[in-house]
Amino acid sequence: MSRYWSALVHDLSPYTPGEQPRIANLIKLNTNESPLAPSPAVLAAIAGEATEALRLYPDPAATALREALATYHGLSADQVFVGNGSDEVLAHAFAGLLKHDAPLLYPDITYSFYPVWAQLFGVATEAVPLDADFRVRIADYRRPAGAIILPNPNAPTGTPLALAEIEALLRDHPAIPVVIDEAYVDFGAETAVPLIAAHPNLLVVRTFSKSRALAGLRVGYALGHRDLIEALTRVKDSFNSYPLGRPAQAGAIASVQDDAAFQAGLASIVATRGRMTAGLEALGFQVLPSAANFVFARHPAHGGADLAAALRGRAILVRRFNAPRIADHLRITVGTDGQTEALLSALAEILAA
Amino acid sequence: MSRYWSALVHDLSPYTPGEQPRIANLIKLNTNESPLAPSPAVLAAIAGEATEALRLYPDPAATALREALATYHGLSADQVFVGNGSDEVLAHAFAGLLKHDAPLLYPDITYSFYPVWAQLFGVATEAVPLDADFRVRIADYRRPAGAIILPNPNAPTGTPLALAEIEALLRDHPAIPVVIDEAYVDFGAETAVPLIAAHPNLLVVRTFSKSRALAGLRVGYALGHRDLIEALTRVKDSFNSYPLGRPAQAGAIASVQDDAAFQAGLASIVATRGRMTAGLEALGFQVLPSAANFVFARHPAHGGADLAAALRGRAILVRRFNAPRIADHLRITVGTDGQTEALLSALAEILAA
Repeated sequence: MSRYWSALVHDLSPYTPGEQPRIANLIKLNTNESPLAPSPAVLAAIAGEATEALRLYPDPAATALREALATYHGLSADQVFVGNGSDEVLAHAFAGLLKHDAPLLYPDITYSFYPVWAQLFGVATEAVPLDADFRVRIADYRRPAGAIILPNPNAPTGTPLALAEIEALLRDHPAIPVVIDEAYVDFGAETAVPLIAAHPNLLVVRTFSKSRALAGLRVGYALGHRDLIEALTRVKDSFNSYPLGRPAQAGAIASVQDDAAFQAGLASIVATRGRMTAGLEALGFQVLPSAANFVFARHPAHGGADLAAALRGRAILVRRFNAPRIADHLRITVGTDGQTEALLSALAEILAA
Repeated sequence: MSRYWSALVHDLSPYTPGEQPRIANLIKLNTNESPLAPSPAVLAAIAGEATEALRLYPDPAATALREALATYHGLSADQVFVGNGSDEVLAHAFAGLLKHDAPLLYPDITYSFYPVWAQLFGVATEAVPLDADFRVRIADYRRPAGAIILPNPNAPTGTPLALAEIEALLRDHPAIPVVIDEAYVDFGAETAVPLIAAHPNLLVVRTFSKSRALAGLRVGYALGHRDLIEALTRVKDSFNSYPLGRPAQAGAIASVQDDAAFQAGLASIVATRGRMTAGLEALGFQVLPSAANFVFARHPAHGGADLAAALRGRAILVRRFNAPRIADHLRITVGTDGQTEALLSALAEILAA
């Protein structure tokens, strides 16, 4: 604390990302990264940007990338916004779309960055509890609200909402912005993108960090009515004109255009998730049904802190949240088949000890 | 305008970056990019990041880059903050350090993003006029203030402040944050970095986009007392945990470590600036003394809008600001020697027409 700080800084409780430690032979199942490499076409596109053209600013509007995403999703480029990871996109959405007199609604157990952005931008909020099965119940959102944000599938639970449920939510709330955060949607949930045409209040947010295996590149995007996109663009152009460098724009375009590699990667991760879930259940874990590239699981006889620490002692990192209702759960990223076997073997040893 | 927007969005007047048009054989002297390529070591470092490791998040704290910058500047890593271009660094400074009850002071003619950030974050401001010679007068800043931000050299004028003047400013204002924006300092002004040890209220901001020829990579940084750095870090970690991707961190480290190439590039640009200034003066232009990689010039007999349009007709882009006192000035980036000759030839033709 310092007298030089703006008053805002004193009150911030910054987000804590999952650890990125430097431990040899670490099995890193704590930040939901992809176990697969980006495709050769993507890596070639990024390497191809290491030229003298780096002396020049990138396109501030990322036009070619927005056009590629528009084509991919069957939209127009003015319905696409891109940013430095979906976290930056979401931050601009909190500032530009989610701040109203009535509170922003989101689940009590969800992406833990939401309350951080709300505090940064002074957004009034109201957390809506998940039901006893850790599911979002759309009926619980029928209350006065200034805006709504929901991940689908939710994190860290991994449970999805059906498209009909999202549609019901939008029917209930035509007058306020509704953001569906689809960071993990590619792993098995239904996307809300087809609802954009009929719902000018719907913003869908996506990331290249999970299903596209490009967490190290920093690209995210939003899709919605062009009025919503304009709000994000106005905030972005009042904050940082050039959030995406040339390697990021080129790599993201190549990823969108290499759909065969993308789909093959998804199928592989979904198959491994099935094996991981079965293996955990065989060890006595209760595993929530996951549509994401992670599972959320607890063991009835072992505390979450103890299990996470024991795994860490075996150089396996998982994520645990020291929060009400979920302190005994572990969020475990779906890694390679080999990593999954190592995880299950380690857990079998720990439970037998 | 839309009913879904936060109230903030209605009032924003976003920054307009210099054009990045796609015109064949364009001579682009409008955004102060370097005419030189990044060094081979820098390009190799960036290409070397196009590997499967891109599936993993980058270090959110950019520790290796901050350590490299600390070593380069003779500071410790906790005195270094890095961001997605100096624009992002400055945005966080406006939110975290420059917002106080008393107004933020800056020159009336300066980087035109300052008032945009002030509006975005609700920072009260007071513009302090440059003197008749378009120079910052430190004595004019002896007035009640919540904070001060000054570029050195100033932009778009290019005129520098002496280190003794910055020191006098800091002596006048020990109780408020003072940000010196050194985007162009490497081209001939004195850096305020040596004053950091004695002045815990001084933040120095730098960019890799100009002197380091990496506008396409998006890296900027700030140097100062660790309490100031902590304010920026708290804001950053409440906004976006991972602003710098793996290619950006690696390329920036390589740039800092390749000082021979860096210094040679600077010397070349400063020499060309001398030739450009002499050539413009020979054509009758009044050229402000520049310590930057651009010159700010006006012709007593020709309007700025007409000159800029005539140059554009010859595929030469320069920057003109439609603003009081400087509407007849052109800000012209120092390009290659060949570009400078083309500029001077084109202006000779235009003036003779």
